[in-house]
Amino acid sequence: MNPAGPRIAVVGATGAVGQVFLRMLEERQFPYSSLRLCASHRSAGKKLAVNGEELEIQETTAESFRDIDIAFISVSSAISRELAPLAVAAGALVIDDSSAFRMDADVPLVVPEINADDLAGHHGITAIPNCSTTQMVMALYPLHRANPIRRVIVDTYQSVSGTGAGAVDELRQQAQAVLEDRRPSAQVYPHPIAFNAIPHIEAFLDDGYTAEERKMADETRKIMHAPEIAVSATCVRVPVYVGHSEAVHVEFSRPMPPAKARELLAAFPGVTVVDDPSNNAYPMPRSAEGADDVFVGRIRQDVSHPNGLAFWVVSDNLRKGAALDALQIAESVLERGLLRVGEARR
Amino acid sequence: MNPAGPRIAVVGATGAVGQVFLRMLEERQFPYSSLRLCASHRSAGKKLAVNGEELEIQETTAESFRDIDIAFISVSSAISRELAPLAVAAGALVIDDSSAFRMDADVPLVVPEINADDLAGHHGITAIPNCSTTQMVMALYPLHRANPIRRVIVDTYQSVSGTGAGAVDELRQQAQAVLEDRRPSAQVYPHPIAFNAIPHIEAFLDDGYTAEERKMADETRKIMHAPEIAVSATCVRVPVYVGHSEAVHVEFSRPMPPAKARELLAAFPGVTVVDDPSNNAYPMPRSAEGADDVFVGRIRQDVSHPNGLAFWVVSDNLRKGAALDALQIAESVLERGLLRVGEARR
Repeated sequence: MNPAGPRIAVVGATGAVGQVFLRMLEERQFPYSSLRLCASHRSAGKKLAVNGEELEIQETTAESFRDIDIAFISVSSAISRELAPLAVAAGALVIDDSSAFRMDADVPLVVPEINADDLAGHHGITAIPNCSTTQMVMALYPLHRANPIRRVIVDTYQSVSGTGAGAVDELRQQAQAVLEDRRPSAQVYPHPIAFNAIPHIEAFLDDGYTAEERKMADETRKIMHAPEIAVSATCVRVPVYVGHSEAVHVEFSRPMPPAKARELLAAFPGVTVVDDPSNNAYPMPRSAEGADDVFVGRIRQDVSHPNGLAFWVVSDNLRKGAALDALQIAESVLERGLLRVGEARR
Repeated sequence: MNPAGPRIAVVGATGAVGQVFLRMLEERQFPYSSLRLCASHRSAGKKLAVNGEELEIQETTAESFRDIDIAFISVSSAISRELAPLAVAAGALVIDDSSAFRMDADVPLVVPEINADDLAGHHGITAIPNCSTTQMVMALYPLHRANPIRRVIVDTYQSVSGTGAGAVDELRQQAQAVLEDRRPSAQVYPHPIAFNAIPHIEAFLDDGYTAEERKMADETRKIMHAPEIAVSATCVRVPVYVGHSEAVHVEFSRPMPPAKARELLAAFPGVTVVDDPSNNAYPMPRSAEGADDVFVGRIRQDVSHPNGLAFWVVSDNLRKGAALDALQIAESVLERGLLRVGEARR
């Protein structure tokens, strides 16, 4: 804690992302002066320890944002739509984890390593990208800067923690059922996810893509300021607890030698190249769990296009895909003095 | 059984594919006159029931192919390279499940719905494609006939049964270990596969692709007689017991409306379209297990290319991906009178 630091509220403190967020506040020694934990009424009254301090969870109301400088909100889009304006009205800067505001023109959608400058344009709300987008743009951007990208095809292998803590429990229970020759029951997903693959994340849209797939296209273009890039995604849930994986095929403006790509990726902050196939070294969700970086491997010329590159990206979807990115945005906001003029204090 | 039918040897009878093959002999009432089961010395002496008959497993030797018309061989490529020539020398027609001979110019590589005519060119050995190739070409070919394909990008979600019975056991044991908070141990794969994704199937080649990925390109071109198609694959093992899934992105010569693609696919034998997203209906490995067809869904215009189409293909890798295709080849050979002239009998 730091008496000169911002006053923080974490809304959705008991969720999968909220829990990791609290751990990252500790790990990164984030200099808050006060911390308020909020969740739904079901969790109100429970206590959580953060930095050795026992904090009681409050039910989220309009009052939750009084005397708060930065509100991290990690709840459903529908609830974010209700809460974020209340927080802004109370003078807080909102860092929102949902898709509610991401594509709004006056909401910066930020991966700090790429477009922290966009934060200057905030009107009270900033958003973090969808977890599957964040790790992909972390790999695309250092390459795009050197050789503009024209087209991206990506197919994902997404973990259940991206859905939330309930989905993690469901995978565990279903896996146990299958191992005991019992029939798994599905509540969170429309079908059992244990020992299965479900090509359905978020709602289906009119063009046959899902909302998740559309986000990967729209958000990538917004974050990279590259409206011209064509993106096609197939988003698939797989029976993994934590860590999203992505097979990516990129077309550049000019040829992109794999050695050059490795060099550009290795030099980019927050990216680690794990690409030594002869020693069975490549990124995997089990090895990325709990790590902050985005891991890139299987880097090779895509033989199907003269300017093509194929690679494999893995990251902890709860960390860089959510909590870490949100915290990095807060750090950037503080560094740049971008807390709102109308804030309650200072 | 049928006294006028061919005399069959099944080599690898105790393996994951061999076991399914014996079940399919029963299901399809394949008209053999005699059946010999062969495996390694470890399984010799064990008994298996087929069509109500108890058969003792023999150790495979050169003698195994005496008085045999058709030998199904499902063993490693290295062992196939030893055994197939012995079978041919003994007068048998070999239907081989390994990659040993697939790309040989005088070996037909056959998916009967697509290129059964190629069987006429056999010189004693025919091959079935790699399981991930077979289900993909079943979806590509009816589209390619109508509108030539120029480029295919495919990322796979492959089940452990593709590796064999040992990998199925390993996934089960590892999943149990993880559920009990024990450390999973890996023998079959270089890393634990339970609750993980491993972007590594078969050996790595000089260009950074794996042999599995190369096969998907080379075999697709050979089966479809289309050397001009560019193919790039990323092959990934996922914690699924049976059923391979594939996210496919295709570029055609002209636009391919999704409705037209659905019509072409639905009319093709062996393909079932499961594509009703509003009712959560799309192919999945758990629902494809035990079924003969190749299931295609998530059919949509690929928004990243004017002539693009994206879809999702799932099939039981032990059935159409292996045993069923082999048996269909045998049926085609019999229908066409293509057993070798030098065969032992007739």
